[in-house]
Parts: sequence; structure tokens; C-alpha cells
Amino acid sequence: MSLERIFNAESIAIIEASRDETQPGYQALVALQEGKFEGRIYPVNPKEKNIFGLQCYSSVMEIPNSIDLALITTPAETVKGHIEDLGQKGTAGVVILAGGFGELGEEGRKLEEEVVTLANGKGMRVIGPNTQGMINVNKDINLVGLTNIPEGNIALLTQSGNIALNLFTEANLKSQTGFNCYVGVGNEGDIKFHEYLDYFTTDPGSSVILMYVEGLREGRHFLKQASKTTKSKPIVLYKSGRSAKGSKTAGSHTGALAGISEVSQSAFKRAGIIEVEHPGEMFPVAETLALLPTLKDNSIAILSDGGGHATIAADYLADLGIRLPELEPETRARLAAILPPNASLANPIDVAGGTDRNPAIFADCAEILLDDKNIHGLLLVGLFGGYGIRFAQKLSFIEEDAAHRMGKLMENTEKPILLHSLYDYAKPHSLELMRYYNIPVYDSLEIACKCVESLSIYSSYRRDNKQEGSFQLEWKQNANLKGQRIIDNALAEGRKILLETEAKDLFRLQGAPVPENYLATSEDEAVRLAEKIGYNAAMKVVSADILHKTDAGGVVLGLRNEQAVREAYNSIINNCTDCQPGADIKGCLISKMADKGIETVIGMKTDDQFGPTVMFGLGGIMVSVMKDVAFQVVPVSQYWAEAMINEIKSAVIFDGFRGRPPSDKKALVKMIQKVSEVAQAYPSIQEIDLNPVIVHNKGLTIVDARIILK
Amino acid sequence: MSLERIFNAESIAIIEASRDETQPGYQALVALQEGKFEGRIYPVNPKEKNIFGLQCYSSVMEIPNSIDLALITTPAETVKGHIEDLGQKGTAGVVILAGGFGELGEEGRKLEEEVVTLANGKGMRVIGPNTQGMINVNKDINLVGLTNIPEGNIALLTQSGNIALNLFTEANLKSQTGFNCYVGVGNEGDIKFHEYLDYFTTDPGSSVILMYVEGLREGRHFLKQASKTTKSKPIVLYKSGRSAKGSKTAGSHTGALAGISEVSQSAFKRAGIIEVEHPGEMFPVAETLALLPTLKDNSIAILSDGGGHATIAADYLADLGIRLPELEPETRARLAAILPPNASLANPIDVAGGTDRNPAIFADCAEILLDDKNIHGLLLVGLFGGYGIRFAQKLSFIEEDAAHRMGKLMENTEKPILLHSLYDYAKPHSLELMRYYNIPVYDSLEIACKCVESLSIYSSYRRDNKQEGSFQLEWKQNANLKGQRIIDNALAEGRKILLETEAKDLFRLQGAPVPENYLATSEDEAVRLAEKIGYNAAMKVVSADILHKTDAGGVVLGLRNEQAVREAYNSIINNCTDCQPGADIKGCLISKMADKGIETVIGMKTDDQFGPTVMFGLGGIMVSVMKDVAFQVVPVSQYWAEAMINEIKSAVIFDGFRGRPPSDKKALVKMIQKVSEVAQAYPSIQEIDLNPVIVHNKGLTIVDARIILK
Repeated sequence: MSLERIFNAESIAIIEASRDETQPGYQALVALQEGKFEGRIYPVNPKEKNIFGLQCYSSVMEIPNSIDLALITTPAETVKGHIEDLGQKGTAGVVILAGGFGELGEEGRKLEEEVVTLANGKGMRVIGPNTQGMINVNKDINLVGLTNIPEGNIALLTQSGNIALNLFTEANLKSQTGFNCYVGVGNEGDIKFHEYLDYFTTDPGSSVILMYVEGLREGRHFLKQASKTTKSKPIVLYKSGRSAKGSKTAGSHTGALAGISEVSQSAFKRAGIIEVEHPGEMFPVAETLALLPTLKDNSIAILSDGGGHATIAADYLADLGIRLPELEPETRARLAAILPPNASLANPIDVAGGTDRNPAIFADCAEILLDDKNIHGLLLVGLFGGYGIRFAQKLSFIEEDAAHRMGKLMENTEKPILLHSLYDYAKPHSLELMRYYNIPVYDSLEIACKCVESLSIYSSYRRDNKQEGSFQLEWKQNANLKGQRIIDNALAEGRKILLETEAKDLFRLQGAPVPENYLATSEDEAVRLAEKIGYNAAMKVVSADILHKTDAGGVVLGLRNEQAVREAYNSIINNCTDCQPGADIKGCLISKMADKGIETVIGMKTDDQFGPTVMFGLGGIMVSVMKDVAFQVVPVSQYWAEAMINEIKSAVIFDGFRGRPPSDKKALVKMIQKVSEVAQAYPSIQEIDLNPVIVHNKGLTIVDARIILK
Repeated sequence: MSLERIFNAESIAIIEASRDETQPGYQALVALQEGKFEGRIYPVNPKEKNIFGLQCYSSVMEIPNSIDLALITTPAETVKGHIEDLGQKGTAGVVILAGGFGELGEEGRKLEEEVVTLANGKGMRVIGPNTQGMINVNKDINLVGLTNIPEGNIALLTQSGNIALNLFTEANLKSQTGFNCYVGVGNEGDIKFHEYLDYFTTDPGSSVILMYVEGLREGRHFLKQASKTTKSKPIVLYKSGRSAKGSKTAGSHTGALAGISEVSQSAFKRAGIIEVEHPGEMFPVAETLALLPTLKDNSIAILSDGGGHATIAADYLADLGIRLPELEPETRARLAAILPPNASLANPIDVAGGTDRNPAIFADCAEILLDDKNIHGLLLVGLFGGYGIRFAQKLSFIEEDAAHRMGKLMENTEKPILLHSLYDYAKPHSLELMRYYNIPVYDSLEIACKCVESLSIYSSYRRDNKQEGSFQLEWKQNANLKGQRIIDNALAEGRKILLETEAKDLFRLQGAPVPENYLATSEDEAVRLAEKIGYNAAMKVVSADILHKTDAGGVVLGLRNEQAVREAYNSIINNCTDCQPGADIKGCLISKMADKGIETVIGMKTDDQFGPTVMFGLGGIMVSVMKDVAFQVVPVSQYWAEAMINEIKSAVIFDGFRGRPPSDKKALVKMIQKVSEVAQAYPSIQEIDLNPVIVHNKGLTIVDARIILK
């Protein structure tokens, strides 16, 4: 059931159409008529014969022809009846505006499911419910009733109608481009984000997809589709609902669960999605990616007519990791020939008044700068566009000529030009010309810089062709029969937690380098096993009932002789029995003390939106306090395991710090992948915690292992 | 030489006045005339007799009356001549526009000094040079030539003319308030930031001071003045020049050195300054603080007409540390009575369509919310102001009534109301009304949230009346004669580095808990001293030539007996001699091994802008990699030493982490203050590095100490 027929509908039913201007059934009807929709419109309303010159039908069944798309504006409880009728007419899709479904809780969720099942059974797909509707600007399909939608090549997917309104307003005010399609996805009761994404990937009218997301219903499918889409089209995404308060509202808003932001950030990045940090960046970044050629290299020049703007822009780009290379001697010489002596010819270039009487010098400088082989793009900041206002009116004509020259310069060099102008508010003709040549104009300096960053990130993503690996979960891949038996056995015993011995066995069976260790069930056995392993030894209680072994007095380290082993065994058993009377204590685990090295934590948690996700960080306060951790959704390829290590700030410690030998990063990469493998092999695992894993100069030691089942 | 007469000049000379519209001598003249300046204007230009109806003088000396203020628009090399003449006329101040002074390097700096000395000698103060000029809106003094400056009660101090232009533009577009004064401080050749600040602190027309700063010439004086000013008026500041590239431009721009941002951030905060992060926040934050009553408590409500905006605003406020308290049951009940059932009555409040047909309900909700004893302010987000556009035209009148009601609500409750509106661009009358009642209107949601944060920070600063301590350096306070002798001795020997023994002695003399340690100059002496101190001992080379003792093989730890001491002594001497032949090795320092504890680093560096500054952080990668450090300028009071400890993220470790005992924070606080005391006592110290300082459950140990002299 493709979405083609829905987005290109040639016949639309409106249930129910209205003459009351406050009703969506009025607004959509007027929008279709005023927008000159070329297909057939069928108003449905039993109380009317004729609305605005169109015959009105008392029910769907009366409509003489087939229907591609229907807008249902009536309350939740009436929807099923309409769906029945529409099904009989072979309708392809329905847009359900009403709230009162999944966003209200269990009962609403049930109704939503029933509606969707009914529709799907009749070959129909559902947009919504709890949505503002959808618009296909090119086909003049407008079921939202908003008029004055700026036209362009951005496809918009959003979970909030007001955010859409925000973006339309912004595009109208600050751009010459706009939107091709708009879908309010609502509760995603049927059609999910990834299906819309699939449609827009091949839709020739859309060259960028812009998304406002509070929570994803099918995160995995979304990532899979997104990683396909971004190979040919950029996706720009703003995710809200990060805070507890925010996600509570998001929850009541669209019924979607807001996920932990770090997990989604790393997943989005891997899928090539450009995630923006502030809502005010959504439109400008989408516009930038829609209009500009990609950067061949992450190196640009800043050209400015004032020190303040140059300084601020240079600060931002430095923070954002954009290079401002030194200019070639020839470039400097050519600039020096046309600029005053106090101009700054380092990058950023400050013309220092050199354009005050002749803004054409901007175009001269731009030509010289883009001739420099190290400069791959240009950010112009300051007053351009306003010389006619600020200095002398006649200068505006010179600015217009400069705009033509810079526009053609971008066409010829294929190096992107971006413009920040203080005078955008005045709508000077020169800025209209810049936009005509697809040069975006920003009124905010910080947003201009963020747009350079986004262009740079997307350009390098396309250029480097990163092996993002698959987002496809291969459940039970590499599962081991004995391993499965360990899990089944625990579940059969009613346990959700594997014993440390079991968790380690599971990893050992999977080929992970788990150190030799043995369960002692008596003091004598402990001595025998300690001597088998060799001193110095460590001893830990084994009990599914005792979660925090150290707190319970269940761990003794550094045992160097028989006497110490005997004392430790008894003390552990006594401590744990005292601490937790009735606990099922299986005995004590004896292992050799681990060699020195860097303490790390490798874990796995099941994310609400994306499923199994591996976590990595340094032990101690680095994870718990500094939050210096990296996440990646399973499966984690070698490339992304390496990326996880490099992502944490404290990773330098592995290269040998303060005279320490370097750590075995290869072993660490393999271990991270092993955790991903185990998570995939055994779908009943909810959480893994290898803490600590000590990384040595050669190899590593899994000191403790914990696995929680679903 | 107060600035009163300059800012309230009643007679102004313009050197040189011009008929050419591209000249500043034209622009200022026209601005004064068009602005209806009520004082006397004296154009000076030997080539003219009369300009625009005013008599033109061939030189300053010809002007018949006294002159309060002169604008010098001629090139750098001509300035001294004019200053001579003006001095004879008893002029109070001159504004020098020309560049070609300190910003160009040594030669320019010399000329600048000569000009300023000359002027001061004649009782004149200088604004600039290298400035755009100054404007006093209330007195119609406009020496910049910019017209259309929005009038209000913000005083603007800036190092960039374009930034001023930016702010004027923004105020005109987005506010009903504006500026009282504008000073382009230029190179700060004579009058410095702190002197302007002093003037505006008592100036009744200024209620907020807004600053754009690239670098401060006299950071100390600035902090002292700022901490006085902020007790009665907010200072809002944006600092650029953070990056190497940025500060290079800033350097060429105004000749000021851009400082390390962390140091200035903590100093600004201590002085009660509101530092904004993005240039786009400068005006809105200043406007907010200029207009709104302070918050009695850091708890507000968000009222929204759309889930998207509510979710985003809640995310931001959570990140910014603003509380969104739960509503009282009565408040919820009252809201429920007027809102639809799907409205969200948690805070943020989402009316969920409940205002679509009657925006007066916003005012109802606002009244109910500000009645709640836990709610101290209100952020309204969404479409308010645009109901007449979005829904039905007649709703605009209802919005206007709601605006009147909310305006009066703020007056009566003295609880601030802030409004984000998507429809500000359309300039609806209801938003004009909101502004009439001093309710600021923002078109950006993220900026609205930042303004809430700034209001909250400034309110709590005024409320809590923090003991910011003094910024006054009391050089040589608590200096010790013996300590001074150590330093003098090293300087006499041509050393810029104190020996470890000397550095520790210096701290011991100052009353710091330096552990017992002794210098051994032979193997036998080492044994004797080790036995005196007691095992287990540590030994370190003492040599001013060896900076990195560990790298040179000059440190041996954990010496438990005589044999070990003898071996260690010889090995250290041999290693260091091999590693650095010819090094002046004084012997080895013997001390007891420190007890376990938390490794910290306490340091002091001399900041270019603020002078001596104490640094604190955890040892190891926390300082060098994670940059989890706190700075405070000397003198550091107990309050700020505690604040430094609490400022670092990793501070939780001192409270006892993973079963460790808590650390002696009091000892740490004293030690931080001690470093501040030493820095102040001995002005010839450039840098101090106590690394590590091990903090125990009781007390602490200074393991190593390094002092570098100026």
C-alpha cells in the first residue's frame, strides 16, 4: 500500500464539510478551492445540499465516483463508521484530525488500534489520528486550511502543528524557498515516520526532509530508512522532549515516548541525519542544505566589513570545528591591492571600511578568495545589502551588481556562499538577488555559523561514504545453544538476573576473553581453587539475591595465602547472611586478581525507541558523574566500536597518559563488538553490565559481569 | 575629571565639519541638527564659512565660547594639533574617530599614549580613538551620525560599531524600548570600560548596561566597578574573541587582548554580571532586565496553546535550571473548569485548543496561575497575538482585551510575564499592548527561555546578596619576611623557578600544612633523614634545572628500608645526571609517603586581563583532558573557595564515592584560600602549581609544589 496515491490524490472527500469558518471542514474546503486543486472535491454533510458551489453528499456512499483521499474532521467516536463507508469506495487513504486516541492513554490506544486495523483491512492507510492534516503544495492538496504556504523543495514531517506554522512563517519572512509537502504525523497510528521518509526519498519534488520529532514509534525502522535516505537527500531533525517535563508534555501531545537524548543523538548521527540543537535552526539549516552545493573540504573563508562580526563568526566556527585556513601569499597580495592598509588579511578577512564607498569590492574579494585552492566556501558577514541604507542610496545599485557577480561566482565555482546581513529586515533588492542565485541570507550570525557547520557535516558524510553498518537487528545470530540454556535455566527458576558465573560463562561461550574463575561452595574448596588459580586471588559472593556485592561485604581482594582465603570465605558468607538473611548464596567465586590497566565500563541497555544499545565509558566517576559515555545501537560494527572509543573525551588515556603504557584498543574494540553480538544473540537479555573491564597494555580483563533478562 | 560634562555637553565642536555625505563630519552635523540638539554646535573647517546655516570656524581657537565636547574626525597624525587648541578652550572631552593608533601595534600605541597624555594634561578626557563615536539619546547628542536610534533606558558600551548597529536594528524591529546612551569605547586609550560603567551606575536614565567586549584593558578595575554597579543595575555582557582566530581579529580590531574565557566567565559571574552566550541574546536579555520586576523565586509556569512549543520550552527551562513546580490542587481545579478535557494541567500547561475560539482564556489562565503561591512568573508561548490572523479576525479584539488584563495582572502581582509569539512579525495591536505594559515579546522560543534564565539569575543575585568578596588586590598583605627572602634569593641567583623545597617552605611559612620533608645531599644523609621521618618514604630530586622530575627518573616512591633508600638515592642522582648533564642537582628531598585520598590540583596563574587567578580541579585527566576546573580571581574568600569546589562536576567525589570516606572539604577550602593569600603576599610570583594535593578524610597533603616567578 504505497503512499503515492494519497500524496497525489485526484479526488478528495471532506467529512464533514462546513460553512462555519472556525471548522476544519470549512478551512480545508476553502483551501482546496482557493488553491485551485485540479481534482474532484466531494463535500460530505447530511445537513447541506451545496457548499460554495459544490454538490454536498449526505454520506460517503452517495459519492458517485472513486475517492483517493478522505479528510475526517468528526470526533473520535464517529470515525469507525466513516472508515467502513470509505473502505467500500476503494479509498487509498484517510486523514483523521480528531484527538481522543492513543494520546489519552489505554482506552484511546485501543480505539486507535481498532480504527487502523479496520482501515488497513480495507486497503486504506491512515494519516494521524490527532493531526493537523497534510499538504502537497505541488498538487494543491491542502487539508490543513493554512494558506500562504511558501513553496519550495523541503518536505516537512512534524509532530506539532504549531511548529509547522512556525516554520511556514519563518520561510515566508526570511527565504525565497519553502515547502513541497507537509505532513502532521499525529499519533503515527498507522503510517510511521519511516514510511513517509521512504516516500519522500524518491519524491522528485523534495530535496531535503525536515522533521520535528518528540518521540519515534518505530525507531529501528526509522534508522534503517533514514540511513538509506541520507545517501541521496539530507534529513534535518529537531528532537524535543529531552527533559522529564518536556517528555511529559510530548507524551500527552502525540502519545509518543520521548527517548534518552544521548542514544538518539548517536543513532541519528550514524544514520547521517543532521540533528539541530535549537528550533530556530530548523528552517535555516534545511534551506541551506536544499540550496547550496556541498563543500569539497571543511575549509572556508570569512569575509566581513566589521571587526565585531568577524570576531564572533571566527569564534563560532572554531567551536564548531570548521577550518579557517591561512590564505595563499598570492591571495593576500591580490586582496592587499584592493583593500585599505588597516584591513585584516588573515582569515577572517576584515575589509575595515574598505567597502564603505564601494560594496562592489565584496564581489572582488569573493572572487579572489574562492580562487584560493585552500578555500572551499565563503561566509560573508556584516552589512551587505544595507550600504544603500547605511551610507548612500546610490550604493544599493552597486550592491545589486555585486550580488549578480557573487551569484554567478557560486554557479561557476560550485563553492557555496552564505550571507549574514544585518539589513535583511529591510528587504533590499540586492538580497533578493542573492537568494535568486540560491545564496541563503541569514539575519542571525550564530545561525549562519550553524548552517556552515551543518553543510560541512552533511558534505563530509556524503564525501566520506562512511560505513554506517546496518541498523538491521539479526536476532539470535551467533547464538550458542549452551548460552541459551543458561538463560532458559534462569528464567525457569524465575530469575531475571543471571549469576555472575552465568553471565561470565555466557560471554566465554561467545568467545570473549573471560578470565578463569571457579565457584567454591566451601572453605576447603575455596583454598583448593585459589591454589589452582594461583595467588594473588580475589573472592566474591555468588547469589542472585545480592545485587550490590561490595555493599553486602561480599568481596575480598588481594588474597595472598591459604589463611587469607579461609578468612575471606567465612567473612563473606557471614557478612552476606547478616546483611541479607535468607539470601540464596551459591558460594564464592575465586579468580586471579586482574593486572593493572584502565578501568572501563561496557554495557547494553534496551532503549524504548531503538532497542538494544551498547554503552561505553571509563570506570568510576567518568561514567556516573562526568557522563563521558558513548552509545551506539546494536549491531555495532568495528568502525562504530572504534568511533565509540574516540567519542569519549577521556579516550586520550588509552594512548598512554602520564607515563603509562598505551592500552590495547584493539581488544577493547573487539569487546565492545562482543557485547553487541551477545545482545543480538539472546533477545531475552534486557541489560548487560561489564563493570569494570580492565584494559591492559595487552588484552583486557572482564572483572565483573551482570546480565538482566526481560 | 568626571564624565558628566561630556555626556551632558551643551556645546559641541565638530572637526572637521563637511558637506560630503560620506564624511563623518557631515553625518554628525546632520544628526545633531535633525535630532534638535539644544546646545551650541560649532562646525570647524578652514575651507568653509557656513554649513547648513551654521557659522563655520577656520580653527578651534576662533570659536568665541567655551566647548564642552569636540568630535575629531581627521586622521591620526592631525589629532595632537587639535588637542592643543581644544585644551586652551577648556574643553571637557574629545571623541577621536581615527584609527591608526594602538590597534596597529607599537608605533600606534606610542602615538595613542602621547595624545592621551596631552589631553589629560589639559584637563580633557578622550573617548576612543578608533571608535564610531558616542550618542546620548536623551540630550540629543549624536556624534555617530546614525539616525533612528530607538529610545529607552539601556546604556550601550561596545568595542564594535557594527554590533551597535545590529542592536539598534533589533530594538527597532522587536521592541518598544531601546537605548539611552551609546558609547563606542574604541581602543580605550583614555576612558576605560569601568569609568563609563561608573558614570552609568548613577545616571538616572540608564536602568541596564549592555556591553559588547572583545578584551578589557583594565580587568581588575572593571570587576571592582561592575560588582558595585550590579548591586543596583544589571550589566548584560557578551564577550567574543574566545578562539585563537577570533582573538586575532579582536586584537587587530581594537587593540585589546582577548582573555581566556573560563577565567573571565567566573570573574563576571562573581561580579554579578549576566554574561550571554550568543550575540542574538544581547538585546532581548537587556530588554528583559530593563522592563520586568525580579522573580521572588526561581519557579515559573509555562502556558502554551500547542504541545510542540510547550515541550520545547520545558526542555529548555529544565536545562537552564528553572523550576516548573506542580500546580496546587485548587489551581488545577480552576483551570480544569475553563479548559477542555484534553488540556494538560501539569506545568507546562497546554490549553490544547481551548483558546482557539476565545483567546481571553489566556488571561483567565494567567490570573489563575499567578494566584498559585508556588508560581512566581509566567512564560506564555505560542500563537497569542495571531488569533485574529490564524483563526478569525474578530478574535483580535478579544486578544487586545486579554493583553490589557495580563498587563494589569503583572502590575498588580509584580510577578513577571514574558511572551513568545509566532505572530510578532505581523505587528498585531495586541502585542503592542503587551509591550505597553512592559511585557517583552520574543519571536524566538529559545531566546524567550534564555531571558527567563537571565531574569532568574539576576533576581537571585539581588535576592541572595552574595558575599562576592572584594576584587581589590592587597599586594604584600600577609607577606612574610623569610618568605620574601626565599624569593629574593632565587631572583638574585637569576632563577625564575623556586626549588620544590623553597616553594614548600614558602607555603609552610604562610601557615599551610606542608608535610615534613628534608633535603639530603648524600646517600648517608638520606638514610638518616628517612629514619627520622619514618618509613614508608618517598624521594625526589631537587634541582632548578629539572622541570619534569618523573621523566628524568628523579622520583622513587614507597621506600620501606635503608637498602631501598640507598639504592634510590644513587639511582636518582645517576638518572638525572645522565638525563640532563650539567644540571645543578642540590640533592634529594625525603618525605613520608602521603596517605590515600583524592588527588587534586590547586594552582595560580597570572591572567592577562585580571591578574592573579586561582585554579582548582581533580588530578589526572580531570584537569588536563576533561577541563573540569574552576577559576577565581584573587583574593578568594571562603565563600568563593567553597563555590570553586562545588563548581566542578567531579566534586561529588569529595562526599564519599563508591564506599570511600568523605574528604576534608574544610581543609581544601583553606588550602585554596592559602594559595590566593600567597599569590597576593608576593607580587613577584607568576604561577603556582600544587600538584598533587591529596585530600584525606582528615586534612590534606601537598605532595609537590612549584612556583614560577615573574
